[in-house]
Order: sequence, then structure tokens, then C-alpha cells
Amino acid sequence: MGTFGNAQPKIVTGDAGYVLEDVPHLADYIPDLPTYHNPLQDNPAYSVVKQYFVNDDDSVAQKIVVHKSSPRGTHFRRAGPRQKVYFESDEVHACIVTCGGLCPGLNTVIREIVCGLNYMYGVNRVLGIAGGYRGFYSRNTTSLTPKVVNDIHKRGGTILGTSRGGHDTSKIVDSIQDRGINQVYIIGGDGTQKGASVIFEEIQRRGLKVAVAGIPKTIDNDIPVIDKSFGFDTAVEEAQRAINAAHVESESIENCIGVVKLMGRYSGFIAMHATLASRDVDCCLIPESPFYLEGPGGLFEYIEKRLKENGHMVIVMAEGAGQELLSESMRYADKQDASGNKLLQDVGLWISQKIRDHFSTSKRMGITLKYIDPTYMIRAVPSNASDNVYCTLLAQSAVHGAMAGYTGFTVGPVNGRHSYIPFYRIIERQNKVVITDRMWARLLSSTNQPSFLSPEDIIEDKKEEAPQSQLLNGESGRDDEAFEKVISNAC
Amino acid sequence: MGTFGNAQPKIVTGDAGYVLEDVPHLADYIPDLPTYHNPLQDNPAYSVVKQYFVNDDDSVAQKIVVHKSSPRGTHFRRAGPRQKVYFESDEVHACIVTCGGLCPGLNTVIREIVCGLNYMYGVNRVLGIAGGYRGFYSRNTTSLTPKVVNDIHKRGGTILGTSRGGHDTSKIVDSIQDRGINQVYIIGGDGTQKGASVIFEEIQRRGLKVAVAGIPKTIDNDIPVIDKSFGFDTAVEEAQRAINAAHVESESIENCIGVVKLMGRYSGFIAMHATLASRDVDCCLIPESPFYLEGPGGLFEYIEKRLKENGHMVIVMAEGAGQELLSESMRYADKQDASGNKLLQDVGLWISQKIRDHFSTSKRMGITLKYIDPTYMIRAVPSNASDNVYCTLLAQSAVHGAMAGYTGFTVGPVNGRHSYIPFYRIIERQNKVVITDRMWARLLSSTNQPSFLSPEDIIEDKKEEAPQSQLLNGESGRDDEAFEKVISNAC
Amino acid sequence: MGTFGNAQPKIVTGDAGYVLEDVPHLADYIPDLPTYHNPLQDNPAYSVVKQYFVNDDDSVAQKIVVHKSSPRGTHFRRAGPRQKVYFESDEVHACIVTCGGLCPGLNTVIREIVCGLNYMYGVNRVLGIAGGYRGFYSRNTTSLTPKVVNDIHKRGGTILGTSRGGHDTSKIVDSIQDRGINQVYIIGGDGTQKGASVIFEEIQRRGLKVAVAGIPKTIDNDIPVIDKSFGFDTAVEEAQRAINAAHVESESIENCIGVVKLMGRYSGFIAMHATLASRDVDCCLIPESPFYLEGPGGLFEYIEKRLKENGHMVIVMAEGAGQELLSESMRYADKQDASGNKLLQDVGLWISQKIRDHFSTSKRMGITLKYIDPTYMIRAVPSNASDNVYCTLLAQSAVHGAMAGYTGFTVGPVNGRHSYIPFYRIIERQNKVVITDRMWARLLSSTNQPSFLSPEDIIEDKKEEAPQSQLLNGESGRDDEAFEKVISNAC
Amino acid sequence: MGTFGNAQPKIVTGDAGYVLEDVPHLADYIPDLPTYHNPLQDNPAYSVVKQYFVNDDDSVAQKIVVHKSSPRGTHFRRAGPRQKVYFESDEVHACIVTCGGLCPGLNTVIREIVCGLNYMYGVNRVLGIAGGYRGFYSRNTTSLTPKVVNDIHKRGGTILGTSRGGHDTSKIVDSIQDRGINQVYIIGGDGTQKGASVIFEEIQRRGLKVAVAGIPKTIDNDIPVIDKSFGFDTAVEEAQRAINAAHVESESIENCIGVVKLMGRYSGFIAMHATLASRDVDCCLIPESPFYLEGPGGLFEYIEKRLKENGHMVIVMAEGAGQELLSESMRYADKQDASGNKLLQDVGLWISQKIRDHFSTSKRMGITLKYIDPTYMIRAVPSNASDNVYCTLLAQSAVHGAMAGYTGFTVGPVNGRHSYIPFYRIIERQNKVVITDRMWARLLSSTNQPSFLSPEDIIEDKKEEAPQSQLLNGESGRDDEAFEKVISNAC
Repeated sequence: MGTFGNAQPKIVTGDAGYVLEDVPHLADYIPDLPTYHNPLQDNPAYSVVKQYFVNDDDSVAQKIVVHKSSPRGTHFRRAGPRQKVYFESDEVHACIVTCGGLCPGLNTVIREIVCGLNYMYGVNRVLGIAGGYRGFYSRNTTSLTPKVVNDIHKRGGTILGTSRGGHDTSKIVDSIQDRGINQVYIIGGDGTQKGASVIFEEIQRRGLKVAVAGIPKTIDNDIPVIDKSFGFDTAVEEAQRAINAAHVESESIENCIGVVKLMGRYSGFIAMHATLASRDVDCCLIPESPFYLEGPGGLFEYIEKRLKENGHMVIVMAEGAGQELLSESMRYADKQDASGNKLLQDVGLWISQKIRDHFSTSKRMGITLKYIDPTYMIRAVPSNASDNVYCTLLAQSAVHGAMAGYTGFTVGPVNGRHSYIPFYRIIERQNKVVITDRMWARLLSSTNQPSFLSPEDIIEDKKEEAPQSQLLNGESGRDDEAFEKVISNAC
Repeated sequence: MGTFGNAQPKIVTGDAGYVLEDVPHLADYIPDLPTYHNPLQDNPAYSVVKQYFVNDDDSVAQKIVVHKSSPRGTHFRRAGPRQKVYFESDEVHACIVTCGGLCPGLNTVIREIVCGLNYMYGVNRVLGIAGGYRGFYSRNTTSLTPKVVNDIHKRGGTILGTSRGGHDTSKIVDSIQDRGINQVYIIGGDGTQKGASVIFEEIQRRGLKVAVAGIPKTIDNDIPVIDKSFGFDTAVEEAQRAINAAHVESESIENCIGVVKLMGRYSGFIAMHATLASRDVDCCLIPESPFYLEGPGGLFEYIEKRLKENGHMVIVMAEGAGQELLSESMRYADKQDASGNKLLQDVGLWISQKIRDHFSTSKRMGITLKYIDPTYMIRAVPSNASDNVYCTLLAQSAVHGAMAGYTGFTVGPVNGRHSYIPFYRIIERQNKVVITDRMWARLLSSTNQPSFLSPEDIIEDKKEEAPQSQLLNGESGRDDEAFEKVISNAC
Repeated sequence: MGTFGNAQPKIVTGDAGYVLEDVPHLADYIPDLPTYHNPLQDNPAYSVVKQYFVNDDDSVAQKIVVHKSSPRGTHFRRAGPRQKVYFESDEVHACIVTCGGLCPGLNTVIREIVCGLNYMYGVNRVLGIAGGYRGFYSRNTTSLTPKVVNDIHKRGGTILGTSRGGHDTSKIVDSIQDRGINQVYIIGGDGTQKGASVIFEEIQRRGLKVAVAGIPKTIDNDIPVIDKSFGFDTAVEEAQRAINAAHVESESIENCIGVVKLMGRYSGFIAMHATLASRDVDCCLIPESPFYLEGPGGLFEYIEKRLKENGHMVIVMAEGAGQELLSESMRYADKQDASGNKLLQDVGLWISQKIRDHFSTSKRMGITLKYIDPTYMIRAVPSNASDNVYCTLLAQSAVHGAMAGYTGFTVGPVNGRHSYIPFYRIIERQNKVVITDRMWARLLSSTNQPSFLSPEDIIEDKKEEAPQSQLLNGESGRDDEAFEKVISNAC
Repeated sequence: MGTFGNAQPKIVTGDAGYVLEDVPHLADYIPDLPTYHNPLQDNPAYSVVKQYFVNDDDSVAQKIVVHKSSPRGTHFRRAGPRQKVYFESDEVHACIVTCGGLCPGLNTVIREIVCGLNYMYGVNRVLGIAGGYRGFYSRNTTSLTPKVVNDIHKRGGTILGTSRGGHDTSKIVDSIQDRGINQVYIIGGDGTQKGASVIFEEIQRRGLKVAVAGIPKTIDNDIPVIDKSFGFDTAVEEAQRAINAAHVESESIENCIGVVKLMGRYSGFIAMHATLASRDVDCCLIPESPFYLEGPGGLFEYIEKRLKENGHMVIVMAEGAGQELLSESMRYADKQDASGNKLLQDVGLWISQKIRDHFSTSKRMGITLKYIDPTYMIRAVPSNASDNVYCTLLAQSAVHGAMAGYTGFTVGPVNGRHSYIPFYRIIERQNKVVITDRMWARLLSSTNQPSFLSPEDIIEDKKEEAPQSQLLNGESGRDDEAFEKVISNAC
């Protein structure tokens, strides 16, 4: 905790409880690196900017709700262009790889890394690694130029292709070394960033002048520290279609339940935001909030109550919700029919079947259930305008960081300011909906669903989370801020 | 064949092989009905129209591709307002019911019946029957006024609610009689129109002055005779989203297959049109075209070939495709796990599982499969502009017909002209994609998929269909025209 | 009339008043042309089709609302593939040109001509002419292959570029001859088709074996004979956004008038259909229906009445509406400020100013007016699914026709069946909304707007149109059918 | 400056340069007000939340990019529910008014104030004031209940109606007093908030227990301090359609210029973000960046250059751009034709005409220009999902604040945390794009347009802005942060 692999956190402290969690730099392990004049100083677009370059002392505060005399807490290095760079333009040989599932905005990030390197720093050699990590050693690369990437932000998916897994550290670093690559941009989620961290460590071990920059990607918005992840906005927007459809279907048929499964294996952000944005949802189920089906206070009882009151209802569930119920259920199920059971491991299909079975067995009430799984339809759309602007800033921050010699970092906005964040802060745990927080209370109050929680659960919850938050100097690393992050756009 | 229940077809013949298949009229079984001056004659909007009223002799030709000396064939009575009406404005007490599944445009049809009766004929009493046929005897009605329905065309679904089944002829006709209803507008598919036909016959048997008008509804476009059904256009449009998503997903991942299931239990029109409109589809499977999975010329072989060539593919399938394969497969499956097997009766889930199993068993090639079922997201959207205009014409034609005393009829465009069609022509069989026709050839040529047919199949097919086409006077009722209908917008 | 330039109509007559207006053929002026086996016979996609090839006697009836003994009227040659073709695959050297304003679907038509020639007939040489007619002699051509055009149907505009004018017959035919082109596909409106007709005549004069096929393009839907033009559906759909916006704006502000200008220089089809589809419009002004501003029964009076009743209103106007009022107004205006007056020649800006001036001068009522001109936003969208399928059929019909040796023809659906239509029928006059017809009556009844017509106007109208309809053999060439066409999707 | 009207800023200072700019409270001028237990404590949805209530000491830091030892700077009071409230549920009589132009999200804010008051605080009496400020004294009110507002967030516009002006302080406060209203929610822009401030002062003067809460509304995003205004995201998204259309049009025609005018009378945020999100724009003109037409470095020169390079270009301009050029131009224009000149006061029409005139006069190059003004089409759309969630938080923050007795405040997110901000900070000046900042540099670099600036301009700019930033304690109140705000989502 607090460290990952053998990397040592770079911590700087200051007055009034100020802590800077800094990121590695090529100069940390390569002595006497020459620096160069930043070519942006000669760019007419930038020459009119008064204070274009980021001051070396600039840091971004993570804590923002404060008291008159509270300690200042954790800060991160501010992203942006530096007066001095550690690469000459024609020295740079960059590569970009996308890993994991699709997410709106991947192509925009690719486009903006290519254009950023080219327009801002005069870099002409950028390679696209095909099909995820394994593409480093098993596939051909393609050359990425501003012309090639010019229109790709209008398309969903990733022009590079993607895959899960395939992370073989030495093969990858060999390939980087063999191809003469010296800037590596890695776009991917949790696991991918872990891989990036390991690649960085191996590069550092070999003493290579190669900057490794991670761009965090998760449609689920479950990456900690940063305000939100790219594609999230687009996903919540697109999810409205499915919820609308469920609403229309359920309203038109007596005792009809519309069930919509949304993304979110470990966190319910999409489900929560989509529910709050829509206001047509009667129940939102997320991984963070355990629930039960039978008996008083259970889901079946609530469904029956809503149908009696309204004649219809809409349930939104994150794909990771109710997993413990599901595994228990599967344990008792007949193991013989592999295919059928495999399908039931889809929690949306499973719960739909459970609800149908309950009402047909109990004979208390005839119901109709319409199940909608819009996952791929959401993932595959191009990013919306807001995500497009966000992706640009992410990509440019990564480029500025690598050019300035920073390495082993990810980028992302912290309280609205783009920052360089050490890998360990991103991958040490996942960002989750805090169900004892106000945003979730808002949701409960807007849907009127039961909390499925007893007062003891809440105290329990508190205890469990405590150890996780031990970080650095005995200070609570997640502190109020970490709780707060959840409600970032929020109150 | 040619008749339904005890209704006698009304056939009129003329020169050069002219045949008119007419619809019943209240005056057929009620003598000495008084007629009234059509109030449209005094409506300023219509008073400027030169030949506003339909000539009693107007009929619409079903046959349109002709030779110099071919017989003129089947005609239908042209829809539209008549000089004389059989109801006075304040005598009319109409009701509207919607049955079966959702379809874009239901609310527009409801709106336009209400507004048509009110604005054109000064009718103030229109009842909404709630929740389908069973609403006639088990639910309260609501009063429908132009104000109530003013904005409903912008919403999906049906404000009346709908259900399947619930058809109890005597209870329904009792309710019609008890409530003093004298115009019944029934919006629904195949089965619903059969029900409407039986209601009409019972009303005729009881000698009631009640006009029964059916408005054919089927998102699948599988109603014969008429050019296309309302909501079809909107559905094909909306299906593009799902196909695009499948395309983006499959392009971004190696050896990825995107599978999209679309509506079409007995006919593949939506799948075929969505495929032709999109051009990103590599294989389209429909109920009319049997296919097989294993062996040379089978689906698995084709998938392997496409993946080897392109690295990805998109399959679109109608929900009714491959049903015989599915039932055979189920017969052998373990019956013990009801829930799992029930899921596999969804042909999309089933075929997805089959493909996954095949490639993981055969170990020939690792694949990824993404399954998308956009059914409810398609059904629930509001109708597009083109369907809105179409729904208006349908509704107004039905209103003109009922006011003019016609009964036991459905409405719909035949070669672009709205017509009154006897029930038996609509319900005697379903409209299907003719796979030995040019439109399907076009599709095959655009996807490059195998036909899954041997030359013998084709001849077989020819023989089988022949008897079905025996209709009326020994003339081929479906003749070229029936074949043609399939390619109605078409060449 | 009935002829254009020096081309002689090819008329065939038959029994019961049957008339076929045929199109020219290369064999009409080049003797002893060899024919070839149609390669489609060997195409697996087509080999399963029973009656794939169009029978030489097939014709499509224009008249469809008939009486028992009415004459059969005008027919056109049915489009589609023929058993014999007049070009060998590797002999064909085709070119495509797009002229005039943008229209959704242009790229789809281009794509489908290229793919149709290639997939169906094995043609590899297709040239794109850049920037309209003048591109034949002043610009470079580009080579069009299925790969180049693969995704273009998802983009608006035309990849070839377009322009108005530039028609220089001898330079164009010289270029065709010099480049060895033998199939010319010309996509464009009224004026463009006239140009195509002249090119055909010059080619015929020179005795060249060059087939000239016109694909009629007009977003306004003002091309006669054919059911509707491509892009029209998409345009009406897209126009809904603007009308919705006008509705929302006007509803939110007291005495607010939303004015939307839509396309339609000489015909009001888009305005009429957009109004009927939306139902939020209080007044629809089109070129075919003259109106006046001042005095009883005038527009100002109606506006005042609606605002008093409802507090807001929406006016939709075609760009060609009220042109005579506008020119009169301009005649009196100060000629000195060219720029300002030029702007006022935009009828939407002009009428908005007139309305503002009237209410501010008359001081009867304070109003707010919001003017929306969505023209370019409508023209530039990609075609919707329905137009995509339609464009495919158009393009393929054109290709089949040219391969079969037909020339000097346009293609288009007549009563739902694609046909070959002689140029003179397309260009002799424009299709217009018939304001004495039922579709317009429907609109008047749905908006409640005044007809701006006196009974005398109607009779006047009748007289004027009469001579125009004299055509061929004394039979009324446009007859009921021509009137009917207007309401083609219609009743 | 620092104060507005006679209100005294409430300033609290703390350690290390901590400054809290607090908002007024009813208890400031009404002694001995009783407080009540917050009913949220008994709400099951909130009872599970650990630390639901905002600590009285919580404040939100405006400064977020800091150095190790920089002063802590300005803070605002954190928004949210308080342990104690100053109103009993059945004592509350709230009213809501919307003023100024339309903006996506107005209906969502209205809905959420009504639902927030009702669901969270049990308030049943909420009045809607019709048609803006003047509705207080000249129109009837309507009663707003959760049922009435249930679906309004899916519609654009404002159900209350809106207007500009009409602010008559004493009539409004009389009406508030006479109707017994004690919570006033005022949704509107700059001018409206000034009005709200004056109303608050009059209420304070009269010693009334009436809380006045402002919800800042500006589609232009030109309100200072807060991160962004509601509807802005939706507007930028919707603007993409117009830019796409301009791009398609200009690409399809030789030497074609697409000009899109967007909202932004005094600030160019929408134009800037829409440009950055689209990447199809060649020139973005905003009010903050003066430009000139003629001569070297001018717009005409740049247009000619781009057309020669690319053959087409897209210009996006904010409605307030180039106003000084426009007024100069008008000064010389013929004053006689009022209507024409009035039109030319629309900067988009004016510049389009100027460009056309330049190229037709100079005869250097034939151009085509397509002008698109999507303003009303953007303003009238419903808010997107992201704005919907944002509007909820705004509305709930306002409700919590008023219930807690705060008054004379506006709400809005500061660095992602919703805060209560004194009126004077919102209305003292407008938020503007800082053209010497990095975000604008980014834009310049992405469009390649000239900066239209000489180095002297930049220094000039620096000097001019300096005095404005004098605020409180000699510290720069707007400091880096104020500059930073501009690039809030930004780097």
C-alpha cells in the first residue's frame, strides 16, 4: 500500500500540512541528461500567452473543502508545458497503445497525442501499436500522422484495436528498446495502468531514456483521485436511451417491469448518474450497495409495492450489482447445462429470471418483464463534445509531461486542474460510490427505493474501510477529499 | 382460404380481368339506413378542394407491373371521404383500442383518429379502451379529446396501454352494446385483426349499427397486401444504431463477431432493410431463409472465412431465424435447468453460445463475440416524420370509412393509395421476404454471405408456394403483384 | 411539350387505352450492336432467384386509381436487369458527376453506382468527375473503387464536389469522347437533367456508343412522375428539429412567433410534410398558395388572432413562398444600400421584418419573433435508413439500364416500381403541391390557417392547368394520376 | 467592486492568508429567529448517511493551483443541508421565476426546486411566477407540485415563461409581501441576478423573513467564480451539428466558406469549446479577441490563404465578436433603409456580406459562402444528462441554503464543490475567455488562425486588467485562480 512494486513514492512536504506526492523523472535515474529549449516558445499561437509555461512549483490541491485551520493535505504536480524539455523534436520516437474494453473517446485521445506531439513539439515519428499489449511483440505497427488521425474522433472504438491481457513485461520492453521507442503512451484501465507501472520499472531498471505516460481509461469512472474518466459523460448520456425505452415499455403494459443493465463491474457511477439524470427510475442497484431479494425490505417486496402503486416500474442495475447473490445462486444450480448457466452469470439475465420466477411461483401477481442490455451500444458511440475537449486536455498533458522528462505517471484532472499522478495512487484501489454519502442519499430519495441497509451495516462499513485509508505519514490518504471525490460534480 | 369465419367475400368483376374485392357495409345487413350530408362540405379547409370526395367507382389496382395485354387483376376500394355519411356527428360514439406489442406510431394513430373525428366530423365522444381487448370488459375507459392527445405523438408506446390476448367475443360485443359504442377502431397485428373480424361478425349477427375498422399494426411489416406497416421505417432507422455499435465493437477487437438480433418472428423485413441500409453487415439471417451451422456451406465455415479475410464481422438476425435448428437443439438439451434453457430459447443468445462453443471446442481460432439485442430500444421510440405522416393518413382513412358506413375492413396503402381491404385478405397469411426474389439477391450480393440454398431448394420452394396462391376465380390472387409487394419500395 | 430538343418520344400503344412512353436505346441509332450474356446469371447471389431478369414486356402503370372501365393510360418501362447486356465488363468505362445543391443521399448514390457496376457486372473503371459539369473539362478526375466509396454513405455532402452551371455541351461530349467514357451517370435536379438530355442528343448526333443515365436529385421533391426524390424523407425528418425549436421558443415567451424557413423554391412539399409530421405549426406558407399580408383574411390578421388565442405561434414557410409580394416590396425599397436589400431578398428575413414592422407600427400588440433558417443543417446530414435503401435501388436501376443499352433516360419509382422514364417527362414541368387537393386540405385543417383563396381562385386555377395536361393522343397525360402523384404516400 | 448597492461584504479571515467571503443570513437583520430540527434527519434515504450535514466551518477554496507556501486565498461557504433550519415545512411559501433568454436546463432546475422542497423538506406550497419579473405584479401565478413538474425536464424552454426586463423592485417586493411568500428562487443571468440583489436589499430594508436565492443562468458561461453554468455543455454539444453542416457544405463546393454564428454576446466560451470539440474549424472569432478584416494579418488575407490551400474553410463566430468593426461599418452605411440595416446588425449576416463583397469586388477569387445561425435550435433543446445532474445539484443547494436561512446568495460549483456565493461576486463583472491564456493558445494552435494580435497588445492587455483585480486586503482577488477559472475543465 502506498507503494507498488519497488517504486519509492516521491514525497515533498511543506507548511501547514502541505504534502506533494510527486511523480518520477528520467533525471531521477539517468544522470546528466541535457535539456532543450521548449519549441512552443517559438510557436506563434503560444507566443502571445503571457504565462504559458507551468511554474515548477505549481501543485494542485486535492483537498478543497477546508476549515479555517485544517491542514493543507495532499497535492499533485500540475500538468502542462515546461520551459525546458528533455527531448529534441527529431529525437522523439513515440508509440501509443490502447488496452481493455471500448470507451467513447479512445480515438480522440489517440488523435490528440499524435497532433499534440506534431503541432506543439514538431514530432514526426509516432507508432500505433495494434491490438493492445500483445501488439508490442506480435503485430505490426502503423505509422500515425496528423493526416491519418484527422477524422477518427468522429468514430467510436479505437483505430488501433484493443485486447485484454497480453502483458509480457520483458517482451514489451525488448520491443520498445529494439524499435528505439523513447515515449510510451498507454491508454487503459486499472489493470493496464498496473502493467504500465511494471513497464516503467523495468525501463528504469534497464536505465533507458524512455518516458512512460499512462492515460487512465474506464467507462465506469472507477479510477481514484481524478475527477472523472473520459467517456463517462458520453456513456451516461447514451444510457438515457435505454432507460427511456424501459420507461415507455413498462408504462404501456400492465404490471410491467423494465430492467436495464448498465456498465459498472465494481462501481455504480454510470448507474447512479444515469438514474439521477433520467428521473424515470424506481430502483437503482449497484455493487457498492448490497441488497437481498426475499422477505421484508427485500427487492421482491419493493417491486410488488411499486407495481401496486404505479402499475409499472424501471430498475437500473450495474453489471456488478448483486454478485454475491448470483454466485450463491449458481452454486446450487444444476451444473450440467453449461451454456444455460453461463448465460445466467449475466446478472441482468439472472435477476430478470429470478423476478419472473418469483412472481409466477408466488402467483401473487402476473407481471411482464422487459430486459435491456445497452452495454455495447453505449461503449461504441463516439465521444460527445464535452468528452472531446476533455480528451484533448488529457492527451496534451501527457505529451507535455513526457517531453518534460516525467515518467511513470498518469494524467488526470484533480479538482478541475490537470495533474501528474504517480501510478500507485491510481491502481492501489478502485473508486467507488460511497453509499453513506450524500449523492447516494439523493438517489435514494429520488427513487424512493429501500436502502437495503440496517444501521449496523453502516457502522460495519466504516470499520472495514478504515485500514485501506492508511497512507503516507499516518495521514488519512483518502481523508474527506477521497470521500468527496465521489461527489465531485456534486455538492 | 379466401373467406374467414362465415363472412362472404364481396367480389365485383369488370372488363379485361378486372376484379374488385370489396369490403362489407352496414347497409349490407341493416335495411333502410338513413344517410347524411358529409359535414366536410362546409369545412373551409375542404371547401376549396375541387374534387374532394372519392368517387364511388374509384378502386385501387394491386397489379402494377403489367404487360400490354395482361388481365387487370385485383382491385380494392379506394379510401377517403364520401359525399354521404351514415352517422350524424352527435350520434357517433367511438372507441379505440391498442393490442399486442409496442410499435412506433401507436400514439400518432390514436391522436389522429381522435382529431380526425373531431375536426373533420365534429365528433366529441371518443373512448380509450385501456390495456388491449380485455380492457373492454375489465377496465375503465378514458375520454379522449383533441386536448388530451395533443402531444402524445412525441412519445413512444401507447397511452392506452396494451396487452396480448384477452379476446372474449361476447363480452366485448356486450360491452360495445352496453356502452352504446357505434364505431370501433382496433389497432393491432395479425391476431388482433382476426379478433376484429370475429367482433365484426358477431356485431353483424346481432344486427347492430356499429362500424368496425381495423388499423393494421406490425413492426415486422409482415401484413400482406399493404405497402408497408406504420413504425417499420422508424424501426429500420433505429436498428442502425445497434448495427453501428456491432460494427465498431467488432472492428476494434481481433476476430470479433458482432451479433445483432432484430425483430421479425416470421418475416425478415426489418433485418433485410436494416442490412441494406447499413452496408456494414456480413451476414443476415431471416426466418424465410433456412440455414445450417456445421459443415461446408454452413454458417461456421462462413464465419471462419470472413474472420480470416477481415478480422471481424457483423451478423444481423431476425428473432425468428433458425427456429428449427433451435428447437432441435433444445430437444437434446438437459431439461433440468429450466431457467437457463428458457434463456437459450432466445435465438440470439442461443446462436451466440453456439458460435462461442464451436470456436472454443474446435480450437481453430480464438474469437470474441458481442451480442446486442436492441428490440425494446427500437420499439419504444416515437415515430419518425415519415411514419407520422403515414399514421395520419391511416387514421383519417379509417375515420372516413367508418363514417361512410363501411365496416369489417382494414385500411392501408396499396401501391401508394390508401384502400379499404377486407379482413380476410390481411389475416389469411403473413407477408414474407421472398428469398427467390431480387431484393434478397441484392442483399446476398451486398453481404457476400452464402445462400444456404441448393438449386433443389429453389424448385422445392416454388412448388410449395403454388397452392397457396390459389384464390378467387382461379386467378392467382397473389400473382406477380404479391411477389412484387415484397419489393415494394423497390425495383 | 411532349418533346424536348429534337428527341422524338417513343410511344407504344396497346389494348384498352394502354400507352407505353418508352426510353431511347443505343440500338435506335447504332445498327448491329452485339449483345452479351448478363454476368449476373453466374453470380451465386442471383443464381437462386427464380425470375431474376425483367421481362422485356414489363411495364409500370402510372394510373392506379381506376374505374371498372377506365382506359389503362400511361406506362413506363420497368427498371431492372435484362437477360442480354450491350457492354462487356472490361469494355465499360463509366463516369459519375453530381451537380447543383447538396441533398442527403448523394454519397449513397455514388457508392451504389460504383459497387453496383463492380459487384454485379465486374466493371473496374469508374471515374469521378469533380465539381459538377465543369469538372468534365476543367478538373482532374478521380478513380472510384468499392474500397474508396466504402464508407461515404455515412457522410453528408458529395465526395465528388458539386457546382451549378458549367454546362458546355461540346466540351463535355468532347471530354467524354477523348477519355473513352461509355457510360455517363448524371446526378442532379431539373436543370441538370435538361443538361443530361442535351448531352444525350449530342452523343446520339455523333453516333457514339455511350449510355447516358440521369438520376434525379431534388431535396424539394419537385420532380414529376416519380413517387418522391431521394433525400426528401431525411430532409423532412431533420426539419422537425427546427420546428420543435421554434415551438419551444415561442411557447416560452409571451406573444412570440417562431418562423422557420424551409427548402422549396418552386414547391412546398418539404414545408407541407414537415408541418403535417410535426403538428406544432399554426401556418404553412408555400409557393403554390399565394397569400397576402394586410387586411381581412391576410396573414397579419391571422397572426394577431392566433396570438390572442394562444399567446404564441409557429409559421413554416418554403423559401419560394410569397415571392411576388417580396419583389413588389423590393421594387419600392431604397436601392442605395445593396447589402441590406440583398439580405431582404431572403424571404424569411423579409417576412420576419415585415411582421415586426407591422406590429411595432400598428402598436396593437408587442410581439417577439424568432427566425430560424435550418437549410444548410438539413441539406448536409447523411441520408437516413429509408433514403439509403431507396438510393441503392435508384443506383442499381440506373446501372442495369445502362448495361442493357438504354440511354437518355432517368430512373425513379412510379407507384413503388422503379422505371425508366424519358427525359422530357422529367424536365417538362415541375411537380407542385396541388392546393386544390386533399393533402393540402388536410394541412389547412390541421393548422386552421386561412386558405388565402377565394372560390374564384379555384376555378381560375382549374382553367390554367388544363392546357398543360394535353399530351399524346389527346389523352390527358397527367390525368388523375398526375394530380394524384402529389399525394403519393397519401390517400 | 467588492460591494454592490449598500450591501456590506461579510469577510472572515484565517491563518495563512485564508479569506472567507460569506453570504448574508436572515439572522443578520432579524434578531431571535427560532431554528428547527432539519426534517432530513428523519428521512430514511438520508438516515444511513454518516455525515450528511455540512459542518458549519466547511468552506470551499477558490485557489487550487498553489505553491508550497502561497497564501490560501479566497474561500466560499460550502453548500448543502444544515443540522438546523430556519423555516418549518408548513410555514414555507416559495416562488420560482425564470428571466432572460432560454437555456437548456431551465425546466430541470424548476423541477428540482419543487421536488427538493417537497421530498426533502415536506414543503407543499410553491408558486410559479409567469413570464419573468413582471409576472410578480402583472400575471397570475400557478401552483407547482411534484406531479405538475414530473416530466418537464424532458422538454426545452421554461414552463413558466420568461421575459427580459420588467424589474420594478417595489412592485415585486410588495407582491412577495402581499402573497406571503418567504422563499424566492430567481433563475436568470447577470442582469437578473443584479435584480435579485436589489430585491434582497429591499427585503432586508423592510426586515422581512424572506430568503432570496439566485440560480445563475447563462448559456454563454460568462458568470464569474463558478466552474460553468448549466446548459453550457448541452449548447456546446448541439453546436456541433451546425459546425458539421458547415463543414460538409464547404467541403462539397469549391472555394466555399461555411460561417456559423454561435451564442456569446460578451464572451466566446461556446465558440471556443465548440471549436475545440469539433476540430473542423479553421477560424474562431470571439468578442475577447479583436480582429480586423483588411490588410496583412487580417481576416480576408487568412481566408484567401486557407481557400488556396484547402479549397474550403469553416469560420465559427460568437455573436459578440467584431462589434466595434460592425458599429464603425454601420456608422458609414446609408441610414435610409432601416430594415436592411437592422439585419446587418446581426454580426453573422454582416460579416458574411463583407466577405462576399470583398471577394466579388477584389475579383481575386470566386467564393461561395454558407451562413448558419443555429442559435434558437441550440437554446431550445432539453438539457443533456450531464446538465440534468448538474441542475439537480444547483437546485438542491439553493433549497438547502434558503431552508438554512441564508439569503442574498447565488449557488454554483467552485472547483467542483457547490458553494454559496455573495451576489456581488457574480455580478461585478463577466467571465471572459482570457486570450493570453493556454486554452486560447490551444485553440489558435488547432485552427492555425492568426492571433490578430501584436506583442504590444499583450502588454497592453496586462496593464488594463491589473486594477480590476484589486480586491480585499490588497490580495489579488482574481489572482491566478481567476485566470485559471477559464480553463476550468482544463489543464
